[in-house]
Amino acid sequence: MIIDCHGHYTTAPEPHNAFREAQKARLKDPSLPEPVYPDISDDEIRETIEKNQLKLLTERGADMTIFSPRASAMGHHIGKEETSIEWSRRCNDLIKRVVELFPDTFIGVCQLPQSPGVPISHSIAELERCVNELGFVGCNLNPDPSGGNWTSMPLTDKSWYPFFEKMVELDVPAMIHVSASCNPNFHATGAHYMNADTTAFMQFLQGDLFKDFPDLRFIIPHGGGAVPYHWGRYRGLADMLKKPSLDTHVMKNVYFDTCVYHQPGIDLLFEVIDIDNILFGSEMVGAVRGIDPTTGHYFDDTKRYVDALKISAEDKRKVFELNARHVYPRLDKALKARGK
Amino acid sequence: MIIDCHGHYTTAPEPHNAFREAQKARLKDPSLPEPVYPDISDDEIRETIEKNQLKLLTERGADMTIFSPRASAMGHHIGKEETSIEWSRRCNDLIKRVVELFPDTFIGVCQLPQSPGVPISHSIAELERCVNELGFVGCNLNPDPSGGNWTSMPLTDKSWYPFFEKMVELDVPAMIHVSASCNPNFHATGAHYMNADTTAFMQFLQGDLFKDFPDLRFIIPHGGGAVPYHWGRYRGLADMLKKPSLDTHVMKNVYFDTCVYHQPGIDLLFEVIDIDNILFGSEMVGAVRGIDPTTGHYFDDTKRYVDALKISAEDKRKVFELNARHVYPRLDKALKARGK
Repeated sequence: MIIDCHGHYTTAPEPHNAFREAQKARLKDPSLPEPVYPDISDDEIRETIEKNQLKLLTERGADMTIFSPRASAMGHHIGKEETSIEWSRRCNDLIKRVVELFPDTFIGVCQLPQSPGVPISHSIAELERCVNELGFVGCNLNPDPSGGNWTSMPLTDKSWYPFFEKMVELDVPAMIHVSASCNPNFHATGAHYMNADTTAFMQFLQGDLFKDFPDLRFIIPHGGGAVPYHWGRYRGLADMLKKPSLDTHVMKNVYFDTCVYHQPGIDLLFEVIDIDNILFGSEMVGAVRGIDPTTGHYFDDTKRYVDALKISAEDKRKVFELNARHVYPRLDKALKARGK
Repeated sequence: MIIDCHGHYTTAPEPHNAFREAQKARLKDPSLPEPVYPDISDDEIRETIEKNQLKLLTERGADMTIFSPRASAMGHHIGKEETSIEWSRRCNDLIKRVVELFPDTFIGVCQLPQSPGVPISHSIAELERCVNELGFVGCNLNPDPSGGNWTSMPLTDKSWYPFFEKMVELDVPAMIHVSASCNPNFHATGAHYMNADTTAFMQFLQGDLFKDFPDLRFIIPHGGGAVPYHWGRYRGLADMLKKPSLDTHVMKNVYFDTCVYHQPGIDLLFEVIDIDNILFGSEMVGAVRGIDPTTGHYFDDTKRYVDALKISAEDKRKVFELNARHVYPRLDKALKARGK
């Protein structure tokens, strides 16, 4: 089967987005009434999925998506901790409804109620709720809740450890994923996302996090940012910083997805990164929605690029299915329970 | 001939660095005496060059380097404008001495006295001095003088325009190059450099700078950061943002160097980027100084990777020489004056 490890609910029903707008409006004008989360019917949800993710998934020949709230809308920098808690719970509950409506196609990954300056331990309760009560299999962890000002400590700092302990205890991975940027220097999907991916990898390289957490697992999305293209630089930096080689120091715990929107990029990814560290992903419907005039196909139809690789059927199965089942053990369990 | 467009004086004589340390010490303790710039002999300079850049250049079979002060030591975030003016002048004067000692091998590119919050127009005087008096052929422009806090406006903002006007008037390009990072999230050469490259490209994509400045030229170093690896994403983003295609919108004014430290990365760069937009560069002696155990050669011996490409002799000549002469017309003039 073919599992897309990276999908966001970018097409959520309009009333859901309107709730968020009302929440933001009240931050500016506290005299406004507290917004009431709207009733959203199953049909409304069904329609947004059937016309978009499900349609494209079927057309492209994939089977399921590891599904999380829209990353650019997480907006951890907006409001206070309470704002983020309320919004995250609503977003995660909506993902749960998608999963209930399409249980064979979607499985949930949660947004965390991060907020600048708030200890990450405050996100543990929502992670536990999503995993233990909603059946989610992982989370999206934002290394920069400030939204482009980068005011937190690196991911290797001990302040993150309580959350990592919980991830290990629950046996769930995190995808490193920033949200929108409120820094005018950084376009969200064109700069901030890429930079966060590259930054996170380099933090892992500089630190020794995986000595302390040998079972911790991260997915760095968007093909690992700049990292595979500069694999020689990173191997060289590990050497200069007197770290072990990357395969033991970082790559037992870090995985890249295939959200790289052209064939030469995918070719490079598979040339330099071990097959066991690559998970199929498309971020569909996401950052780039158009059709590539040079191919006539959607930029984000990454399955085509993987299909075109001259790799063994066994390796393809790893990328399309087995690696995801390994990185997300709760997904594997859920599939096995269904005889898959 | 073979021209390396990207070399920094990372091996400057120790008294030069000691002056900087004294300058920094006095910022912390203003009761200290104003440091006096040391006498540095020609022999001292010769030795640092002959043992390092010149030795490696000769071994690798290149002819000359477009040479600028050490990027990570520019430290625009340190002290005030006066600090940066003093330090930049000293650094540029030192480059001038290298060029005088080795006129066939080095030509100068200047550091700018940028400082957070100070208008970029204040850097014009030093640019003019370096170009008109010292014979330099370009400059390094820091898009983030704050050193990792990204507090400036994007490069497409009109606040940068006075400087761009001067660049066009003098007919010199700028390499976009950040300095050290004082943000613990960003390792300088492993994250901050890459992020700045990616960020600058995306700013150009988002904006319309080259409509206003059709003759402005930028080199984005380190192989363009994450950009060539994600070329499909950027082509798709241009489409989504309703911009013209990248070849006309950005790539008439933007060039990438070959500071990508492994063969697959260089292969990708040449596969997706037009040959006219690639300049040979190695950033030697720079970020990565070791030997790649998988090849037995220096990571940053990028000439080997270019040599290994199956491209025509004419295309190689473009990358090794002609593109640099086109992007740096004052280099071309200087070479022609010597009958080269």
